[in-house]
Amino acid sequence: MPDAVTDRLEALRGRMKQAGADLLALGPGNHMHWLLGFHPHADERPCLLLVTAGGEAFLMPALNAEGSREHTAITFHQWGDADGPDEALTAALADVGGANAKMVVLDETMRADFALLLMDRLPGASHQFTDATLGALRMCKDNVEFTFLKENALINDRAMQAAFATAKPGVSELEVAAAVRDHFKSEGAAPEFSIVGGGPNGAFPHHQTGDRKLQKGDAVVIDIGGRKDGYPSDMTRMAVIGVPPEGYEEVHAIVDSAVKAALAACKPGVKAYEVDAAARRVITEAGYGEYFVHRTGHGLGIDIHEPPYISASSETVLENGMVFSIEPGIYLPGRFGIRLEEIVILRDHGPEIFSELPRTTHVVEV
Amino acid sequence: MPDAVTDRLEALRGRMKQAGADLLALGPGNHMHWLLGFHPHADERPCLLLVTAGGEAFLMPALNAEGSREHTAITFHQWGDADGPDEALTAALADVGGANAKMVVLDETMRADFALLLMDRLPGASHQFTDATLGALRMCKDNVEFTFLKENALINDRAMQAAFATAKPGVSELEVAAAVRDHFKSEGAAPEFSIVGGGPNGAFPHHQTGDRKLQKGDAVVIDIGGRKDGYPSDMTRMAVIGVPPEGYEEVHAIVDSAVKAALAACKPGVKAYEVDAAARRVITEAGYGEYFVHRTGHGLGIDIHEPPYISASSETVLENGMVFSIEPGIYLPGRFGIRLEEIVILRDHGPEIFSELPRTTHVVEV
Repeated sequence: MPDAVTDRLEALRGRMKQAGADLLALGPGNHMHWLLGFHPHADERPCLLLVTAGGEAFLMPALNAEGSREHTAITFHQWGDADGPDEALTAALADVGGANAKMVVLDETMRADFALLLMDRLPGASHQFTDATLGALRMCKDNVEFTFLKENALINDRAMQAAFATAKPGVSELEVAAAVRDHFKSEGAAPEFSIVGGGPNGAFPHHQTGDRKLQKGDAVVIDIGGRKDGYPSDMTRMAVIGVPPEGYEEVHAIVDSAVKAALAACKPGVKAYEVDAAARRVITEAGYGEYFVHRTGHGLGIDIHEPPYISASSETVLENGMVFSIEPGIYLPGRFGIRLEEIVILRDHGPEIFSELPRTTHVVEV
Repeated sequence: MPDAVTDRLEALRGRMKQAGADLLALGPGNHMHWLLGFHPHADERPCLLLVTAGGEAFLMPALNAEGSREHTAITFHQWGDADGPDEALTAALADVGGANAKMVVLDETMRADFALLLMDRLPGASHQFTDATLGALRMCKDNVEFTFLKENALINDRAMQAAFATAKPGVSELEVAAAVRDHFKSEGAAPEFSIVGGGPNGAFPHHQTGDRKLQKGDAVVIDIGGRKDGYPSDMTRMAVIGVPPEGYEEVHAIVDSAVKAALAACKPGVKAYEVDAAARRVITEAGYGEYFVHRTGHGLGIDIHEPPYISASSETVLENGMVFSIEPGIYLPGRFGIRLEEIVILRDHGPEIFSELPRTTHVVEV
């Protein structure tokens, strides 16, 4: 077993003990990828990694076993399409000593049928999700992860500049998004998402980029991300087409102040909700509280959204090495939206911003 | 509400009654898309469509509400990041009269935490997945769905020919896959997957296409799919680089006979396992049973893998309008693999193959 996997499994068992969990089950997704450096093909066939204090084993669809074997030496309890997973699950639970588990950590992202296949076997057992165990470990990034995230952030800066260069009157949101995708690919990154919201569309925080053409006077929210070396990027900047809409500069200044207030609040030992509150206070005091309709940020690692969540209800204590977004926004229905998003890594002295691109509005000359 | 949605909801309630289910819950995925013609942005925020005999309602993250509102008039019970979903779920359950549900149909594909958020609210309730209700409805395709699937299949035929034209000694699997992706895009389809397994790599049914270069004497499994108009394609054909490896023609003939035997077994009223058995019998009698390591096929609709599954354990009764794959294979470790895959729609008189490309081996001249 590679040293990195051994180390992470050991740390995981320590967290499981603290959390009173005697069994952990992961589906073939990003939690497993973080732990083992790979995950088997994910489809509708139940596939679970089971971990207890005493051991680990896979419930493994036979079809995917050979492809997975080259990545791990962990025991596979295989099942074929003709028989279904029941007997193999019994064997896997017995193997790790998990058949009488009382508190199970479930990968919250796995398919419902995978989770219930296991829980139906353990009547009376309770469950928790990974927040206190694997999720807590994943929040703090090591140097290798930092390097990948930093490289991706700088690619994202350049992809944003490609968006700026494309945004013009008569060009559709989708065309701007295509330029972003092409840029990511040109640097060997896989495009993950590109929200381009022009004019009133910018007032939907999760706008689905469409064929509306940009026009003079639009404010444009551009929120993009790509992925390279298994790690993503995520950043939001603003452009305006020629002249900004009425009230734009005031709102932009408020959102930027909210970013700065959140950054100033980020310190090891601070709770996540305090950072959210710092951003929210600026916007609320400026009279726009009702238009800041989402949390201030989310963690970023293998997943684009992962703990720590920077929300009003999050009691997570921020620690050195955590990576997360600071992305307050103000969304004025029918008019425009403004969101400014930085990804930061928390250091002992405070947050370091990954991006080197200023948060000033890019003005498209028309 | 659009007529198509009203009709599908009514059919769904009929199936729920037959299945003894008093509540159904779907996450933002393909089941919901089939039912409503859209689904909200899917992320870690719990989002559920709840359906009972008496009504339907959404548990909806406020952040995604506006973007979803343009697609549906169903009531949203919204929750914000600051408060979490608990109160909104209580309201949604009360709205549809589901707070005392005893048998819940769960979308098996949704996140484990979404499913358990609901089930933890309904102590003592049992669950089933969608097989007997929504899944059963989705198996039989209407004419609109057929038209999309047919168009996609013909695009796939041409993408396969692009793969054939690219496969040459010294060209990597990834380069062949790139040609396939480019072809899909040239016809307005989104590439979904492309398995290109040359030589010994072909012996892994779910091989991850890599940088191994094709060489003279390779058999190459090419299994590709794209998506257009919301529906996918899926087909597998074989190529050989110059001369086939030893034993290739015999094995190809066996796999092709297995396809034909399965096709001959496909009739309305037959159970899916009988079709699997027909293919498996041919391969077993030829002495290769242990090398046919997967089921014979899977349904194809909005999902690339969906019911009906054509497996040794599937009791599903085949019906007019079902669409599924017939894809037996023989995988000889260290040597080569052969899989031949057709997508068919079952008609009263038997199966109709979507593809117009023969299953003969494409021989690359070297």
